Amino acid sequence: MTLKVYLSGEIHTDWREQIMQGAAGLDVSFDAPVTDHAASDDCGVAILGAEADKFWHDRKGAQVNAIRTRRGIEGADVVVVRFGDKYKQWNAAFDAGMAAALGKSLIILQPPEHDHALKEVDAAALAVARTPEQVVQILDYVLTGRLPG
Amino acid sequence: MTLKVYLSGEIHTDWREQIMQGAAGLDVSFDAPVTDHAASDDCGVAILGAEADKFWHDRKGAQVNAIRTRRGIEGADVVVVRFGDKYKQWNAAFDAGMAAALGKSLIILQPPEHDHALKEVDAAALAVARTPEQVVQILDYVLTGRLPG
Amino acid sequence: MTLKVYLSGEIHTDWREQIMQGAAGLDVSFDAPVTDHAASDDCGVAILGAEADKFWHDRKGAQVNAIRTRRGIEGADVVVVRFGDKYKQWNAAFDAGMAAALGKSLIILQPPEHDHALKEVDAAALAVARTPEQVVQILDYVLTGRLPG
Amino acid sequence: MTLKVYLSGEIHTDWREQIMQGAAGLDVSFDAPVTDHAASDDCGVAILGAEADKFWHDRKGAQVNAIRTRRGIEGADVVVVRFGDKYKQWNAAFDAGMAAALGKSLIILQPPEHDHALKEVDAAALAVARTPEQVVQILDYVLTGRLPG
Amino acid sequence: MTLKVYLSGEIHTDWREQIMQGAAGLDVSFDAPVTDHAASDDCGVAILGAEADKFWHDRKGAQVNAIRTRRGIEGADVVVVRFGDKYKQWNAAFDAGMAAALGKSLIILQPPEHDHALKEVDAAALAVARTPEQVVQILDYVLTGRLPG
Amino acid sequence: MTLKVYLSGEIHTDWREQIMQGAAGLDVSFDAPVTDHAASDDCGVAILGAEADKFWHDRKGAQVNAIRTRRGIEGADVVVVRFGDKYKQWNAAFDAGMAAALGKSLIILQPPEHDHALKEVDAAALAVARTPEQVVQILDYVLTGRLPG
Amino acid sequence: MTLKVYLSGEIHTDWREQIMQGAAGLDVSFDAPVTDHAASDDCGVAILGAEADKFWHDRKGAQVNAIRTRRGIEGADVVVVRFGDKYKQWNAAFDAGMAAALGKSLIILQPPEHDHALKEVDAAALAVARTPEQVVQILDYVLTGRLPG
Amino acid sequence: MTLKVYLSGEIHTDWREQIMQGAAGLDVSFDAPVTDHAASDDCGVAILGAEADKFWHDRKGAQVNAIRTRRGIEGADVVVVRFGDKYKQWNAAFDAGMAAALGKSLIILQPPEHDHALKEVDAAALAVARTPEQVVQILDYVLTGRLPG
Repeated sequence: MTLKVYLSGEIHTDWREQIMQGAAGLDVSFDAPVTDHAASDDCGVAILGAEADKFWHDRKGAQVNAIRTRRGIEGADVVVVRFGDKYKQWNAAFDAGMAAALGKSLIILQPPEHDHALKEVDAAALAVARTPEQVVQILDYVLTGRLPG
Repeated sequence: MTLKVYLSGEIHTDWREQIMQGAAGLDVSFDAPVTDHAASDDCGVAILGAEADKFWHDRKGAQVNAIRTRRGIEGADVVVVRFGDKYKQWNAAFDAGMAAALGKSLIILQPPEHDHALKEVDAAALAVARTPEQVVQILDYVLTGRLPG
Repeated sequence: MTLKVYLSGEIHTDWREQIMQGAAGLDVSFDAPVTDHAASDDCGVAILGAEADKFWHDRKGAQVNAIRTRRGIEGADVVVVRFGDKYKQWNAAFDAGMAAALGKSLIILQPPEHDHALKEVDAAALAVARTPEQVVQILDYVLTGRLPG
Repeated sequence: MTLKVYLSGEIHTDWREQIMQGAAGLDVSFDAPVTDHAASDDCGVAILGAEADKFWHDRKGAQVNAIRTRRGIEGADVVVVRFGDKYKQWNAAFDAGMAAALGKSLIILQPPEHDHALKEVDAAALAVARTPEQVVQILDYVLTGRLPG
Repeated sequence: MTLKVYLSGEIHTDWREQIMQGAAGLDVSFDAPVTDHAASDDCGVAILGAEADKFWHDRKGAQVNAIRTRRGIEGADVVVVRFGDKYKQWNAAFDAGMAAALGKSLIILQPPEHDHALKEVDAAALAVARTPEQVVQILDYVLTGRLPG
Repeated sequence: MTLKVYLSGEIHTDWREQIMQGAAGLDVSFDAPVTDHAASDDCGVAILGAEADKFWHDRKGAQVNAIRTRRGIEGADVVVVRFGDKYKQWNAAFDAGMAAALGKSLIILQPPEHDHALKEVDAAALAVARTPEQVVQILDYVLTGRLPG
Repeated sequence: MTLKVYLSGEIHTDWREQIMQGAAGLDVSFDAPVTDHAASDDCGVAILGAEADKFWHDRKGAQVNAIRTRRGIEGADVVVVRFGDKYKQWNAAFDAGMAAALGKSLIILQPPEHDHALKEVDAAALAVARTPEQVVQILDYVLTGRLPG
Repeated sequence: MTLKVYLSGEIHTDWREQIMQGAAGLDVSFDAPVTDHAASDDCGVAILGAEADKFWHDRKGAQVNAIRTRRGIEGADVVVVRFGDKYKQWNAAFDAGMAAALGKSLIILQPPEHDHALKEVDAAALAVARTPEQVVQILDYVLTGRLPG
């Protein structure tokens, strides 16, 4: 049975592509948020009409994006959440909280310098990975029992 | 019936006390994480034994704290999550995600400069407040129908 | 064990008071939305700040009211929804849909002229009453086995 | 993975056809209630036998229709509820309440003149659209990340 | 914490009184359906108005009774279902099915001659008792660890 | 999407075959208990070893059958429960109770002489049919909107 | 709000008393299985009648005990499972699995020599303690924020 | 519909292969943990980096394995748990507890000498088998109604 993986979080590097390419031979399906930053920010007003107030401009967009992200998380077996070097990334931590509450298997992908700040998030995860390659190796092992090397 | 409110997030200012004092006459019970920063960081090793590795030091503490925080969130009618000016505050966003997935009424308390970064979190909330006093007014209205002024 | 009853719907007549007075001697607790129409409409902006756009003015208020109404419905054993003669009353039907999906015992209180328009709502209910007195009689019977007359 | 969309509400205009045609190239499956008004009203007695009393005539029909509508809503990722110009449309609001309680992504399709009357329903939705075309654009964006224009 | 026990099924002998008296010194609360046969049969029409058709007469009553019985079963820790010598007693078996699906601890109280006919029901139970006294002994043991004799 | 129908209850007449043949052209899948009475009674001991005591002989069989029946009910969209003229049929009523508690659409198929004894079961159903043909007509209508005649 | 703690597992040493005495000043309620080994083994036949076959003797007792243990686990905020030096203790691990699946906060109390054999169980826990005193310290910290020493 | 079976527990004999071969002609899909003992023990550190402390070495591995085992159990219709002659096998009992709490149909496969020690686990199961062949016969009967011999 296909393993359903949702790739949440940082959208400024190619970590999703690395994981998807690395897992090319595996029975995995991937889902993710819209990673075009401008489209993601403006989708609400682009479709449903402009807002004078930036707060509601953002609200409209965030809610349209939520149609995709909640379905992605709810439908997943495994949720991978990537924290990068920049930005607040509160939406990533929010997705991790949703995934934890829904009983999803959570993998956090983050550099060691964030270990202390992410300790509550990591404590809800089944793995804390440092590289996309490690995420691929986990998916490979989970599906086939194969270990790297 | 007593309204159960969990106060999550920032632990460096007295916003919890402001809310609790403001709501003194109302039928509300409050719960919160341990807000002594040092105790919160070290509880795991203080009780269960030292760890050589800071990562596992943090893990032990975060998991002991989770006994309290998850019960607090799961038992609440309303979860208030405060985002302050400093730190990563990923645990606050994580708590908000849990609360949203569990169908709790979510109130976000945050300064306007975080509006854009918190747009996904705010979009899952039933109110975005700027001051502890506004949170008190919401609790008052929800319980009594009374409006300020 | 106290029977928890939520009284949803029409806020322009005294049907809630009739039920509460009629049930005075019974082990019932009642909850209801804020029934002050002006307060209910304006609570969002009165507490959280004015909105230029009426749509968001309404949104803010509806979401603050939702803190109360969802808790009321989720905490109830029995949800009574009253449909009156005037207005669209879509919030009443919305509450009935929530109550049905949550498995609450639903009682609809409505005049016969709405029977056809309410047939889908009535079909999810355990009783369709015409008068507040009948609702009291149902509560009395459910708690004590006593029948009127 | 195919996006499952349930189209609830008004059955007197061709808004469902507009959405289905607009979404023709997308990986979406659509479900809806029986939209033949006469069949929908009479299905209960046509199959299970006539009733002398119109109230039970309606009950029988509404319950047979509920077999279809509840399955449609429970199986959907996205529930679109359309409010038109005429009739009470309480079944539409009832469906919206069920969808909200079940955690479905809710899109309300309605003309601006109903904004105030629908404020509680809209407050539970992730989008309020004015035209079928906007609904199509949301589905397109949610599935492909593509924005109109 | 008080053990909540719902006593379902046969209403023609005094088995409920025997259990309640036997458990007099224990921290148990009891709930049960309305056991006045005539009231139970006629409650719907007595409150909500007569029906020409016996089928709907019965429907109205059964639905009013369901307000009480579903709450009793859903709120119980232990559901005791008694099958007697007479009548179809399908409502007893229906209650047992609800209790089993809701994960309640189920005790069946029945004479040996029904063993084969009740085998599917018994297979979902945690105890099959022959006498009210045995039910009391189970409740006593569950609460205090005390065994008879 | 294929409508999943579970056919529970009486196993001595060919009502299941009538429904399956009548629904031949529809997108329906059917499931049912094992209807070979002797196999159903003896499956436990035939596979897992003889029992000296008939009570445990029955228990073993009922539990093996439960693997099939619970899966059938839990996986169904619609549960049809047939009550016939003979036997206690408590397992049929038990299945109906499980189906109701799990929120399945319930159709009861029974002769009019059982109306009063089945009133609590019928009150949880969305349709009470008298003939297998009516069940087929309901399935046809639910899937296609087509009415008989 | 009282913290509800269920103390599962080994019944041959006084670890439960140590925890209850250590937590004497805290707002905690404790529940546990029947710890009288003989009573626990024989409760089924002592109440419901002797069995010729030891397998069914054990089954009857285990099911009567399950009325108590499942309620204890389902009602708990925190489940502590103690593994001792002797016996198979599969019921302890079974309770831990139930607690984990129900989302309870799990604390495992076990000597270091069982670390490897308990790794899957420990991995689902929020704390692995070595002494009853550590469990008391966790409960104290969770309720009051107080650390030992 | 394919019956999904998860084979949990003992990994040192070929019981899984016997079941899979015996069920070759049936509509069953099988899932299981990684049964390569060394890989299962070391997967965490092999992928995510070495640990100085064996406790955390084990934790990392157990959590990576949990991604596979929890999905396997949650996705199964039937969970078979095999207890063998050696080792503590607490993970097997833990899996059985999870399966029971999740409402899965549980089959325990164990030699008679473990009957007393497994009585609580067996009491939650729908069958206690002694041989892999019996498990195959159960699956065959559940799917086809066919009995052995």
